[in-house]
Amino acid sequence: MSNLLTLLSDFGLRDAYVGVMKGTIAQINPNLTVIDLTHQIPPQDIAAARFNLMAAYSYFPAGTVHVAIVDPGVGGKRRAVAIQFVGGFLVGPDNGLFSGVLSQAPAMAAVELTNPRYWLTPRPSQTFHGRDIFATVGAHLASGVSLAELGTPISLETLVSLDEAQLVSINGGIIGSIQYIDHFGNLITTLPGTRVGENWAVIVAGQRVPGCQAYGDRPLREPIALVGSHGWIEISIYCGNAQTQLQQKLGECVTLICNF
Amino acid sequence: MSNLLTLLSDFGLRDAYVGVMKGTIAQINPNLTVIDLTHQIPPQDIAAARFNLMAAYSYFPAGTVHVAIVDPGVGGKRRAVAIQFVGGFLVGPDNGLFSGVLSQAPAMAAVELTNPRYWLTPRPSQTFHGRDIFATVGAHLASGVSLAELGTPISLETLVSLDEAQLVSINGGIIGSIQYIDHFGNLITTLPGTRVGENWAVIVAGQRVPGCQAYGDRPLREPIALVGSHGWIEISIYCGNAQTQLQQKLGECVTLICNF
Amino acid sequence: MSNLLTLLSDFGLRDAYVGVMKGTIAQINPNLTVIDLTHQIPPQDIAAARFNLMAAYSYFPAGTVHVAIVDPGVGGKRRAVAIQFVGGFLVGPDNGLFSGVLSQAPAMAAVELTNPRYWLTPRPSQTFHGRDIFATVGAHLASGVSLAELGTPISLETLVSLDEAQLVSINGGIIGSIQYIDHFGNLITTLPGTRVGENWAVIVAGQRVPGCQAYGDRPLREPIALVGSHGWIEISIYCGNAQTQLQQKLGECVTLICNF
Repeated sequence: MSNLLTLLSDFGLRDAYVGVMKGTIAQINPNLTVIDLTHQIPPQDIAAARFNLMAAYSYFPAGTVHVAIVDPGVGGKRRAVAIQFVGGFLVGPDNGLFSGVLSQAPAMAAVELTNPRYWLTPRPSQTFHGRDIFATVGAHLASGVSLAELGTPISLETLVSLDEAQLVSINGGIIGSIQYIDHFGNLITTLPGTRVGENWAVIVAGQRVPGCQAYGDRPLREPIALVGSHGWIEISIYCGNAQTQLQQKLGECVTLICNF
Repeated sequence: MSNLLTLLSDFGLRDAYVGVMKGTIAQINPNLTVIDLTHQIPPQDIAAARFNLMAAYSYFPAGTVHVAIVDPGVGGKRRAVAIQFVGGFLVGPDNGLFSGVLSQAPAMAAVELTNPRYWLTPRPSQTFHGRDIFATVGAHLASGVSLAELGTPISLETLVSLDEAQLVSINGGIIGSIQYIDHFGNLITTLPGTRVGENWAVIVAGQRVPGCQAYGDRPLREPIALVGSHGWIEISIYCGNAQTQLQQKLGECVTLICNF
Repeated sequence: MSNLLTLLSDFGLRDAYVGVMKGTIAQINPNLTVIDLTHQIPPQDIAAARFNLMAAYSYFPAGTVHVAIVDPGVGGKRRAVAIQFVGGFLVGPDNGLFSGVLSQAPAMAAVELTNPRYWLTPRPSQTFHGRDIFATVGAHLASGVSLAELGTPISLETLVSLDEAQLVSINGGIIGSIQYIDHFGNLITTLPGTRVGENWAVIVAGQRVPGCQAYGDRPLREPIALVGSHGWIEISIYCGNAQTQLQQKLGECVTLICNF
C-alpha cells in the first residue's frame, strides 16, 4: 500500500473529466497522493498510452497504483481489469495498454473488476468507466483493499497484448521502427539502447545519422541519434524538431548499424 | 471544513498564473488539497465555465470549496462573492458562472467579499482577483473561516443567473440545443437523459440519430445518441469527432423524439 | 525547509516526462507538496522561463524550492546549480533562467551539483537531467538536505545572466519593449508600473494607448494600457487579444509617456 496513484488518459485538460475522477478519489480517501502521467494521449490511441505508461512506471515507488484509461471499447465487451505486477498495480480496460509495462515487469495476478462494491455506483454509465469504475477501484487499491476483493481472478495468458513491431537482424545491422514521437519532435525507435556498439549510426529518412552522447555533440539543426532517456535509440535535432524536419511518422523504419 | 479546494479558470497552462494561485493558497494553509477542474475554459467564456462546474461539483466531498474564475468584469462593478450551498462553497465573480450548480443544488447563503482581511492584500490589483481575492478567500474558507466573516450578506435572489435555453415541447418531441462540446467532439445537449423513452432518437444536423446505450452499439464513424456521463443526451461518433463530422456548434437545435 | 517544491519546464503535458519527475520525487519523500508553475514554456525558450519564474516566486512560502528546467545545453558544458536566495532555493541549469528572480531577490549562496549521492543515479542520462539530477536534488533540498551537501561552492558573480533589455529615457518618456506575451495575448512590457504618473499612455504599434486602471475602463475591443498583475505595464484588449489585434511580437518597442 503506497497511498500513491497515477492517472493516464486521453481525456484532455479542457473539460472537467480529470477533475471529476480526482473528486471521486478524494471521496474514498482524501489522503491519497494523485499524480498525473498525462491526459493528452491522442483520443483512442492505445499504442501511445502503452508507450507512456511503459516509459513511466519504473520511476514510481513500489506499490504505486497506475490507473490508465484510453478506452474505445467502453460500454462494450472488453474486460475491466486490475493487475498486480512487481512494481505495483495496473487498473484499466484490458485492451493492451498495459502490455508495454508487462513486457518489462511481468504480471503476478489479475482480476476482472466484477465487484460493484468498489465502483462509484452499482449502475455505472456506459461511457465513463474512468469515473465510475477505474478511479474508484484504484483509490480502494491504493488504500489497502486487496486485489482478490475487486473481482474474479483471470488467467494472465488471456490479458490482451498489443503487437510490438519485431526487430529484424540484417547483415551488419538491425531494422526497427519509430514507436513514439514526443512533444519535442524526438523520434523514439523500437531499437534498444543496449544494442549500440562503440561506433554506431542509424539510417532514417534516407540519411545516415551518427550516434552521439548528447544533444550538443553535433551542430544546431542537424539530426543526431542518441540512446534516449527512455532507454531506446531516438533521433533528435538539437534546438529543432526531428519529426517535422525529417518528415517522419509512427511506424517508419529505422536501421541501426554498428562497429563499421 | 473539507480541506479540499478546486480551481477552475480560463487562465490556461502556458503562464504561471495557476501556479501563483497555488502558491498563495499554500502560504495560507499548506495542508489543503487543491484539485484542478480545468484551466482551459476559452477566454471569457462564462457559459463553458458554468457547464463544467455544474458537471463536476457533485463528485466532490461535502464541504469542498470550488473557486472559479472566468471574469471578464474584473476591476469593474461586478460583485465578488462566496456562496454556501448544500454541497459546499462557491467562490468567484458574480457573473452567472455558478448558476448551473445552483440550478441543481440551491444556494443557502451568500456574501459579497468585502472583508480585506481575507484578501492577499488590502489593495488588490484590478486585473487578477483570482490571485488577490478568490484564491485566498477560498483557502481561508477551506481552512474553517466562516462565510459570515468574509463580507456582507447578500440576497440570494440578486445572484446573477445565465439564461438557460428553454426546452420546447412539440407534438411527439422536445426541442433542445447543444450546450457544450467536449474535447472528444461530443455534442452535449440541454435535453435531460431522464426524458428518453424505450425507443428514442434525436434529430440533429438534418439527420435522425438513434438512441443507444454505448458507443459500440453502432458501426465506427456513425453518429450515435446516448445519455452521457453528465446526465444529458449527447451525440457522439464512435472513434470519431461529432463536432467536425456533423459540423455543429454551440446553440444549434437538437430534437428528441420518443416511443415512436 | 518548506516541504514545498515547484516545477517549471518546457516538457509539455503530452508525454509522461513531468509525471516521471514527480515519481522520482515521491520516491525520495512522499510527503512533499509539488506545484506546477508551467510545463508549456516554448521548447528551449530560456527567456520565457526566466519571466514566468520571476513573476511567480514571490507568491510562495519562504523556503520553497523552485526546480526549473529549460535546458538546451543538457549533456554539454553548462553547469547544473542550486542557488539559495532570500525566498528559498533555485535548482536547474546555469543558463540564465534564474536571472530574473535574482534581479529582484539576490542570491546568497550557490553550488554546482557535483555530488552524485543526491542524483537519481551516479550515471545520469545525457538528455534528461530534469529526472536524473534536478528533480531529485530539489526533493532532497525540500526535505532538509543542506545546500553545501549538494556540491561545490561557486562564486555568485559567475552565474549566467540573460541580458535584460535596457530602458531608454527620452524627453518626456521612457522606451521599453515587450518582454512576454501571455495566454490571453496581453503584451507585458519591460516598463515598470512604478514609473507611471497621474496621466499616462503608451505608444505601441504606432498608436497611442491610454493608461487605465481596469479592463472595463475602455470600450470592448479597444487597446488599453494597465499596470498589470506582474507589476509591469501591459497592453490588453478587453475581451480580445492584443497580440493578434495589434500584430505585435516579443522585443517590439513600447514607449511610456507621462504627465502630459
